[in-house]
Amino acid sequence: MPSELLAALRAALSADRIVLDPDIIESYRADDAEWAPSGIPAVVVRATNTAEVQAVVQACIACRTPVVARGAGTGLSGGANAIDGCVVLSLERMNNVLEINPLERLAVAQPGVVNDDLRAAVAPHGLWYPPDPASAPWSTIGGNVATNAGGLCCVKYGVTRDYVLALEVVTGTGEIVRLGRRTAKGVAGFDLTGLMVGSEGTLGIVTEVTVKLRPLPTASRTVAGYFDSVVDAGRAVRAIAEAGLTPAALELVDRHCLEAVDAWKNMGLSVDANAVLLARSDVPGAAGDEEATAILECCRQSGATWAAQSTDADEAEAMFAARRLAYPALERLGPVLTEDIVVPKAHVPEMLARIERIAIRHNTKIANIAHAGDGNLHPLLITPVGDEDARRRAQAAFEDIVSDALDLGGTVTGEHGVGLLKMDGLRRELSPAVLEMHRAVKAALDPHGILNPGKVFT
Amino acid sequence: MPSELLAALRAALSADRIVLDPDIIESYRADDAEWAPSGIPAVVVRATNTAEVQAVVQACIACRTPVVARGAGTGLSGGANAIDGCVVLSLERMNNVLEINPLERLAVAQPGVVNDDLRAAVAPHGLWYPPDPASAPWSTIGGNVATNAGGLCCVKYGVTRDYVLALEVVTGTGEIVRLGRRTAKGVAGFDLTGLMVGSEGTLGIVTEVTVKLRPLPTASRTVAGYFDSVVDAGRAVRAIAEAGLTPAALELVDRHCLEAVDAWKNMGLSVDANAVLLARSDVPGAAGDEEATAILECCRQSGATWAAQSTDADEAEAMFAARRLAYPALERLGPVLTEDIVVPKAHVPEMLARIERIAIRHNTKIANIAHAGDGNLHPLLITPVGDEDARRRAQAAFEDIVSDALDLGGTVTGEHGVGLLKMDGLRRELSPAVLEMHRAVKAALDPHGILNPGKVFT
Repeated sequence: MPSELLAALRAALSADRIVLDPDIIESYRADDAEWAPSGIPAVVVRATNTAEVQAVVQACIACRTPVVARGAGTGLSGGANAIDGCVVLSLERMNNVLEINPLERLAVAQPGVVNDDLRAAVAPHGLWYPPDPASAPWSTIGGNVATNAGGLCCVKYGVTRDYVLALEVVTGTGEIVRLGRRTAKGVAGFDLTGLMVGSEGTLGIVTEVTVKLRPLPTASRTVAGYFDSVVDAGRAVRAIAEAGLTPAALELVDRHCLEAVDAWKNMGLSVDANAVLLARSDVPGAAGDEEATAILECCRQSGATWAAQSTDADEAEAMFAARRLAYPALERLGPVLTEDIVVPKAHVPEMLARIERIAIRHNTKIANIAHAGDGNLHPLLITPVGDEDARRRAQAAFEDIVSDALDLGGTVTGEHGVGLLKMDGLRRELSPAVLEMHRAVKAALDPHGILNPGKVFT
Repeated sequence: MPSELLAALRAALSADRIVLDPDIIESYRADDAEWAPSGIPAVVVRATNTAEVQAVVQACIACRTPVVARGAGTGLSGGANAIDGCVVLSLERMNNVLEINPLERLAVAQPGVVNDDLRAAVAPHGLWYPPDPASAPWSTIGGNVATNAGGLCCVKYGVTRDYVLALEVVTGTGEIVRLGRRTAKGVAGFDLTGLMVGSEGTLGIVTEVTVKLRPLPTASRTVAGYFDSVVDAGRAVRAIAEAGLTPAALELVDRHCLEAVDAWKNMGLSVDANAVLLARSDVPGAAGDEEATAILECCRQSGATWAAQSTDADEAEAMFAARRLAYPALERLGPVLTEDIVVPKAHVPEMLARIERIAIRHNTKIANIAHAGDGNLHPLLITPVGDEDARRRAQAAFEDIVSDALDLGGTVTGEHGVGLLKMDGLRRELSPAVLEMHRAVKAALDPHGILNPGKVFT
């Protein structure tokens, strides 16, 4: 690595922040995105406070070295993958919840706080941080902000951006700024806070996050429906939307996923169905009963082979736990290439049907999990280890899924971010003029081109 | 006006789009912000479609002429005020609702659609567009987007930005772009949609708006509390927040306002109280009854002289109507300088107390309406027509209110925008580095400096 960079880092940071051991560096090279290329970092820095982050960014500016910020590395698009010769800046040690304010209904957290830990910290105050990516037990708030993470409850409660009130950011010019506000409303200037959310480390490095909270839901009913096909389950999703219902979660899990979870955790969940739809209603009182009944009816009318409201809270929780475990369970079977398309709700059945045809056309095993209620599908393309031909076929299937999603008026990424895997999709989704606006904003806020360059768009 | 500009406009537009009559031009000079300076436009263009907007922007680029976009002119910060020699581009004729889609829960509207008209259009589908500025009967969706308008229901349902899914925009380089998406989720690229919302015509001109909708609330209970002072009413607001309640509206109206409405509309609303707090609960069933009762209890414990749940829907609606009419009613008494500060909910009583002291200190009549539930206060500074000394005193009071709001951790504008009136406040609220980020983004997206220059920040 350039001695100038190392000297600058050593001048600013304690030695224990700076990692040069090649084996440890190797563990920081890539996030969890199968197949995305990654370079070899010159150095990994494990920052413990904002001043250290600023020192790293200033050193990178001085040495014109790319800096790749990183949380837990659970990303699924390669956004946190290293660039050759870069600094990987790990924020995992900045993991304190700094404030919980029940009256203002907000919390302030460092970026390395794990999503579930934030959730657990606010719960005793009767408060709730809704965004709940399936990676919530491992992924960090900083990473969630970088990708504008979604999750199961987004269908009713929105995504990360909807909860970020304010950010502390180290900018592309090496300054520490506070964006946003602590008040419930505010329009003083451009929404630079929202612009940072989902920008995948390309516009600034987030060092503190102030999030809105909601009251903890008090009620929960789970409805499960079994279907012969994912397309039938998709019809139920559309029927629920047509009926004007707003479940608090509406997840689709196919048999591939349940079987993989059982094979791993022996939860005994594999069912006699090719697709399971899991819905939750959190409306209190009789209105919640009505909602659950209406969801059940939509399942039945869409061809459910079996559907019922769960009377056993443990059973219901096990079903949702299986949904969350589906991804790591499938990863045990071989490299998983994860899609993250979103289509209009009306087209959920059609998109699922197209995915089935794509699987056949390219002779590729495609499992399906989906935040079906908001049309966010995660077809998971599974290939045997080391089978290059299968990998090529899966890649072709991946491209076809993107094409079909765009064809149906959808988007290439709902919650994982563009990173490296969806750069081509982004180029296809956005017009040249909109891409030019992206380049202009990037150049304005990262004038030295050091912030995660080469990601999202070029 | 420069003949080059006129020639360019005439080449691109039908003659009836181009207004040169000085009397009509005069009526397009300013929005509803008292005391904000306005220049004299060279020409007013009333566009009827996106291509015409593009033609105007391209002509302005060619002639380096500022263009000020304008909806209904109900803005309260001077954001739509003309600049000498500019083109005022009125979008009021682009007033069609283009699509209402119950399944996807979205609507597509041209920018000149009046807020209440959009609301009325979607209601027969059982749908609701929540943002409801008090100007909803007159203000347009385009103007609402430009200022990120709020309203009464924001305390529970959020502001305009929370509902904008996608925009068609004519950019600072004269191109027509589509930003955002029609799907429930999406993270493909930077949130340029959110960046446009609240940018007051300085980053692009919005020609089409796709908004999220919600189901129409089915229940409504109104609780009213009377108080001897606005500070006591503010204590009730804090108590409601402390109790973890989420009213669907929580409005404060003082006697100045109710008396002004009565003087105008003879609604018989003036009450034997110095402040009225109006709360709405829209939770269905028993949970809603509990919420209303809990709100009532907070009023009583905070010193309400009288408090009750309204049993008469007409009476409740009249109270909310009076709240909405307060601003125009006060305007009949003389020039009104409108504040739009937001403070943390904990500081609502303290801020109201400070406003009372400021009124005494500067011998200025200050009426108070407030979206109190989210700490968004609208002290209204009323001066007799032509009284220059009163005007100077009111200006000093205005500055003190801004100072106190910032001192309490608040923001200078919650929903009206910066425009011209809050430019000094913005400079005080944001750090120099954040202002520099604003300048960089502005230069990136408006490279010719033609989009509403001199507004928001310089």
